[in-house]
Amino acid sequence: MSEEKLNQAAAILHELGIDAWLLLGRETEELHDPSLPLLLETNVTWPSAFILTARGERIAIVGRYDVDNVRAAGGWPQVTGYDQSLRPPLRDTLARLNPGQIAINYSTGDATADGLTHGLWLWLQDALAGTSFTKRLVTGEGIVAALRGRKTPSELGALRRAITTTEEIFRAIAGYLRAGRSGLQVRDYAHKEVRRRGLATAWDAAMCPIVTVGPESAIGHVRATDHALSRGELMHLDFGVRQDGFCSDLQRTWYLRRRGEKKAPDEVQRAFDAVLAAIRTGHESLRPGITGWQVDAAARRAITGAGYPEYQHALGHGLGRSTHDGATLLGPRWERYGRTPYGVVEAGNVFTLELGAQVAGYGFIGLEEDVLVTPAGCEYMSTPQTEIWYA
Amino acid sequence: MSEEKLNQAAAILHELGIDAWLLLGRETEELHDPSLPLLLETNVTWPSAFILTARGERIAIVGRYDVDNVRAAGGWPQVTGYDQSLRPPLRDTLARLNPGQIAINYSTGDATADGLTHGLWLWLQDALAGTSFTKRLVTGEGIVAALRGRKTPSELGALRRAITTTEEIFRAIAGYLRAGRSGLQVRDYAHKEVRRRGLATAWDAAMCPIVTVGPESAIGHVRATDHALSRGELMHLDFGVRQDGFCSDLQRTWYLRRRGEKKAPDEVQRAFDAVLAAIRTGHESLRPGITGWQVDAAARRAITGAGYPEYQHALGHGLGRSTHDGATLLGPRWERYGRTPYGVVEAGNVFTLELGAQVAGYGFIGLEEDVLVTPAGCEYMSTPQTEIWYA
Repeated sequence: MSEEKLNQAAAILHELGIDAWLLLGRETEELHDPSLPLLLETNVTWPSAFILTARGERIAIVGRYDVDNVRAAGGWPQVTGYDQSLRPPLRDTLARLNPGQIAINYSTGDATADGLTHGLWLWLQDALAGTSFTKRLVTGEGIVAALRGRKTPSELGALRRAITTTEEIFRAIAGYLRAGRSGLQVRDYAHKEVRRRGLATAWDAAMCPIVTVGPESAIGHVRATDHALSRGELMHLDFGVRQDGFCSDLQRTWYLRRRGEKKAPDEVQRAFDAVLAAIRTGHESLRPGITGWQVDAAARRAITGAGYPEYQHALGHGLGRSTHDGATLLGPRWERYGRTPYGVVEAGNVFTLELGAQVAGYGFIGLEEDVLVTPAGCEYMSTPQTEIWYA
Repeated sequence: MSEEKLNQAAAILHELGIDAWLLLGRETEELHDPSLPLLLETNVTWPSAFILTARGERIAIVGRYDVDNVRAAGGWPQVTGYDQSLRPPLRDTLARLNPGQIAINYSTGDATADGLTHGLWLWLQDALAGTSFTKRLVTGEGIVAALRGRKTPSELGALRRAITTTEEIFRAIAGYLRAGRSGLQVRDYAHKEVRRRGLATAWDAAMCPIVTVGPESAIGHVRATDHALSRGELMHLDFGVRQDGFCSDLQRTWYLRRRGEKKAPDEVQRAFDAVLAAIRTGHESLRPGITGWQVDAAARRAITGAGYPEYQHALGHGLGRSTHDGATLLGPRWERYGRTPYGVVEAGNVFTLELGAQVAGYGFIGLEEDVLVTPAGCEYMSTPQTEIWYA
């Protein structure tokens, strides 16, 4: 898959008019630039530089003992080894390439584009001291956003597999739910289904799935508890798996009917309908060219217009190798989101659409779908939940 | 274990005369400061600040949906949530504490102390703009080096278990080795032994163990190949496991005798003796108060004095949660190692001692031991290999 992304990266550099993209890394098993695994299928130990150019050159400068390994990993036809210092081969290579702009990976708003540590930034300033290259450094956040955001066919294939598996597991959980099951039991059951398939959860297993049971449950990034589901209560799951390196992220809601009840009480149904309508509003707004915050604003107006409080998060985030895959956010223009809500949606992007509403006395209703932006609009990658599910 | 490290961190701040230590993080499942897992046993999603003071205060400021989770993880009695921006509560907290110095985690030389991304550094500069706090920021590398380097009793216990397991697996491998076994077979056998115990390899499984077979094998951070062991050749393994969150890292060497051979040829034995003597020289030099490069220099003189080439790496590195655990390096004063060879060895540090020599026509001899620095010197945590092992 890295060959696909390396080619895509060169095209993005060309499109953005940036001559070269420089990634630095060391001890990458401990801490690595989130962009590195897209471009290199192994780890390096000593300080290393990876340079891609708009013309398609790929130059790796790594410690002597990493050379064979980086060559074996493939994708980087020029691998230079060094013994004592990365500085001279890096300066020589830049002098030869003489790029007008050199993108490096820092971003105040997008964690996935912020892979350069401050220490390595200081090192780079020092390594290039006395050259004009220090003045040519620019942020690579546009490159990272495009590269992570524009999913290739094989990336979409992996995402679809992860989503399909998650839907299978939701069906298995549906058969397991009944009065008396606790959040912890449901979580453990989900974990068993994940392990049985040889997979991992999409995020920290302690909070994947998030299980919200009844009206007293905390919401957000919370751990399951031993509180048991009772009749007349809602149960909500936020869950995903990591399959072939890609993540799914879906929310589903069940209502456990009281004895004799045919359907959920009106206030539960009304809240469900409002949440569903807001998700659909997001889906209708999402298309290439729109900015992230506009999609969020449309869904936010829909839920508040129906008389429910604003959700205190973004309507949606990019989905890919990470559950929170960075780049454009379908979120409000709040300071904590930096510039990410100002990103422009592109065809080939994959987003979540998610929000919820609390129903006093019953619990939390939350829905989340995964969608692919198409040239004309967007399409569901998941099979949307359109009715309350009964446990 | 985080309670132990939180208390230790406060004592280190006091000792270093630094009033406060500020760690920043966001989307910590994607990318986190290597110091964070020592202090917090969960992940956070939104931009978050963790402040420890020399007086022992522990203040976490996290996004609203991370509050319950950080509270549940424990260790942080003061958890403040925010909705839209981390900036106001961070400024308020610093104004209240009014620390003279605020350590943040950047380091040009020590990857484990370089957890602050450049984007978050820029964010912090902006968030504190107009205050005098920006002038009070100092590097936290001394804190990180002490905190990672000074192993607590429970950390030493975990390290000992990882080492014991690795030695068990080496014994199992010894029974498996024979003529015709390839590097890949040996690696797969080692992986089976690791999985059977429900553990993981200490580093990237594709290169753990590193298996060097015969005289033509590449050395360094290399992958095993299908090249098979022949009689009259050396086989060398560099291997470790991660157990209870801690890593072992050991090298062992076997010689496969030719038919009729009682022992290894003289040139193999001479090289083994030189490598062993150099490791022992390192062991004899290692004691509290010595600087890292001095220990390396002693071993380096020993191996070159015996007529073998200099090894192109450090004699030893810190060992702990990571195989390359940062802090003081027992390495030469080469630019790529930054300031880490200038660190001063302390009691409670755990290091590897490792080096090797190539024997033309036979292969690579490498030995690596794990040692604990004591008040008087150091002691082996592994049972050293003192003779050539015969396959």
